[in-house]
Amino acid sequence: MIPFNKPHLTGKEVHYMYDAVHTGKLSGNGKYTKYCQEYFQQRYGFYKCLLTTSCTDALEMAALLLDIQPGDEVIMPSFTFVSTANAFVLRGANIVFADSCADHPNMDADLIEALITPKTRAIVPVHYAGMACDMDKIMDIAQRHGLFVVEDAAQAVESYHTDRSGIRRPLGSIGHLAAFSFHETKNIIAGEGGMLVINDERFAKRAEIIWEKGTNRTAFWRGEVDKYGWVDVGSSFLPSEVTAAFLWAQLEALENIQQKRLEIWQQYYHTLARVEACGIALRPVLPSWATNNAHIFYLICRDTAMRAQWIEKLKAKGINAVFHYISLHDSPFYRDKHGDRPLPHSDTFTDTLLRLPLFYGLEEEDVAKICGVLEEVI
Amino acid sequence: MIPFNKPHLTGKEVHYMYDAVHTGKLSGNGKYTKYCQEYFQQRYGFYKCLLTTSCTDALEMAALLLDIQPGDEVIMPSFTFVSTANAFVLRGANIVFADSCADHPNMDADLIEALITPKTRAIVPVHYAGMACDMDKIMDIAQRHGLFVVEDAAQAVESYHTDRSGIRRPLGSIGHLAAFSFHETKNIIAGEGGMLVINDERFAKRAEIIWEKGTNRTAFWRGEVDKYGWVDVGSSFLPSEVTAAFLWAQLEALENIQQKRLEIWQQYYHTLARVEACGIALRPVLPSWATNNAHIFYLICRDTAMRAQWIEKLKAKGINAVFHYISLHDSPFYRDKHGDRPLPHSDTFTDTLLRLPLFYGLEEEDVAKICGVLEEVI
Repeated sequence: MIPFNKPHLTGKEVHYMYDAVHTGKLSGNGKYTKYCQEYFQQRYGFYKCLLTTSCTDALEMAALLLDIQPGDEVIMPSFTFVSTANAFVLRGANIVFADSCADHPNMDADLIEALITPKTRAIVPVHYAGMACDMDKIMDIAQRHGLFVVEDAAQAVESYHTDRSGIRRPLGSIGHLAAFSFHETKNIIAGEGGMLVINDERFAKRAEIIWEKGTNRTAFWRGEVDKYGWVDVGSSFLPSEVTAAFLWAQLEALENIQQKRLEIWQQYYHTLARVEACGIALRPVLPSWATNNAHIFYLICRDTAMRAQWIEKLKAKGINAVFHYISLHDSPFYRDKHGDRPLPHSDTFTDTLLRLPLFYGLEEEDVAKICGVLEEVI
Repeated sequence: MIPFNKPHLTGKEVHYMYDAVHTGKLSGNGKYTKYCQEYFQQRYGFYKCLLTTSCTDALEMAALLLDIQPGDEVIMPSFTFVSTANAFVLRGANIVFADSCADHPNMDADLIEALITPKTRAIVPVHYAGMACDMDKIMDIAQRHGLFVVEDAAQAVESYHTDRSGIRRPLGSIGHLAAFSFHETKNIIAGEGGMLVINDERFAKRAEIIWEKGTNRTAFWRGEVDKYGWVDVGSSFLPSEVTAAFLWAQLEALENIQQKRLEIWQQYYHTLARVEACGIALRPVLPSWATNNAHIFYLICRDTAMRAQWIEKLKAKGINAVFHYISLHDSPFYRDKHGDRPLPHSDTFTDTLLRLPLFYGLEEEDVAKICGVLEEVI
């Protein structure tokens, strides 16, 4: 049996969780939370990081910080997870879905400008499979129209974008705000978990307040105010120290984890050249400005039937391959609100994208076996 | 040094967390989540339970389930934690604060009816210190006016209400919905954590969807639908299995924890009779319909100066006593929205309520020492 995903443990998770438990500081914003936040700030130059209970919650914090109001419009890809949209829908926003590129699930930056109206407030690029969207174009458009950019970097830890001047920057450091995920399916995990990145310092103070349930408790602990109280909207966005301790163990092993995942990804890529050569599926295309963080290995199948056949064949051999996403513009919840503006590339990825198993513990012979099953069709 | 709170560990937390980690199912809605939810359903007769990342999140789920809209009014006490209000403010509700009873921080049920308008949608009683609000009156009013009742049972695990027919029911089982907290300061803890209770089965199906980010994934896993997608608003409300595993260890020890806390509470109550007799402070008054779950031991001091003096004296002896809450109607965030309708009892509790250390590891001699410091003033 080869599962689709198997969470990787570095071995130190339980040790640090034990330490957090026996220190007696279990609620959020303790030692391990600070370790993790500082790690990200230092390694990637993020202005400020706040751990959250999920990437969903980080996106919700972003929507609150941008003060999204009912009727505001937010532009994002349709080919993404529901939380990208729900975080803004919860504030009353109307979601304006942009199509994917023809050759990549990422949002096509050339389509964005035509979707902007006086009600547009933000653009939310999703770095699919950790591969950077065209951030040069997106940041230009945002600046020209006075819009905010929230990077949905759920899948994008340890991945980079090189801008037109040749400057290489980590994903999550480019937009005004960014959201990361540490769900068990990600490269770096905490079971459930996420992080908000604040790159525009104007949002830093209010972010702390929204994070702490709308109170100025963080300022109180720093001695800046003499009592704390209700000063804003907010929620309980911070994870427990146990969750942060788990994440800390993962971060210590980040480079090792990334190296192993990249090896697996490369093995898939090279082996499946034969499948691509037969014209039955395409391998991922890495945009010229992007790096690959080996979060997902996918194929774009010739058609839905091809994908279904492969999923069946793999399943018969005990291998679990899956597809995603069902385009949000065509979901039961948003179909009527979206209307009939076609998003053909998004539809194509919904119908034909196949995700293959990719996790730290996947062995070379497992990848060979999976590729062998795929090649049987040739 | 005697801290205000020290989280109690049963010793099994790390064992179950280790099991969850090594089972490889780390994200939410796994084995331990089900154990915990079934425990509550069976022990207290709750119709359906869903673990959440916090009590705040459970209250937010309640607000979403009740479909609270901008301009809707929600009645709740002012003497409560910010999340009671913020959960509804996030949906656009106007909060209508009711005063506390003269002799108890709980909302005075006799004041509710005068606050009802055609815009009122819900009443949110908070069972302060785990002591039941007057649920006979509150449920009658709600029924008469077609309102929903959400019990804020953050502090109310293992506490009961006896109705006018003599029927004894657990707190959290009486309103349409209820929210519990497992924050490290509570009797039963998970670091950060909470639970939504659904007693009105009309909400059960949608609650699962909102819990799973607005998707019908739970129905998918039960085989009721053949693929899952975006069907509603929602968020990532579910905690990781690691968090649920921690909670499970606590639940196994619930009776032992409660017995120990009740002993400490009783020792305070009996020892501090002398302080009450001197007229400088009042001990808690248990309403006739309520039980005491020993969540908080508090004194109502004669005045703010008395409270400040005690906090100082205790601090000088290395004992950490605290006060809460700052009435929400008088907070920087809501003062202008509330207007000048006075809530004198709420103000009194804000100014004079003193919380003494109360945790499992507090020894008899610690309580004697604390009471001794308080008696020095006599």
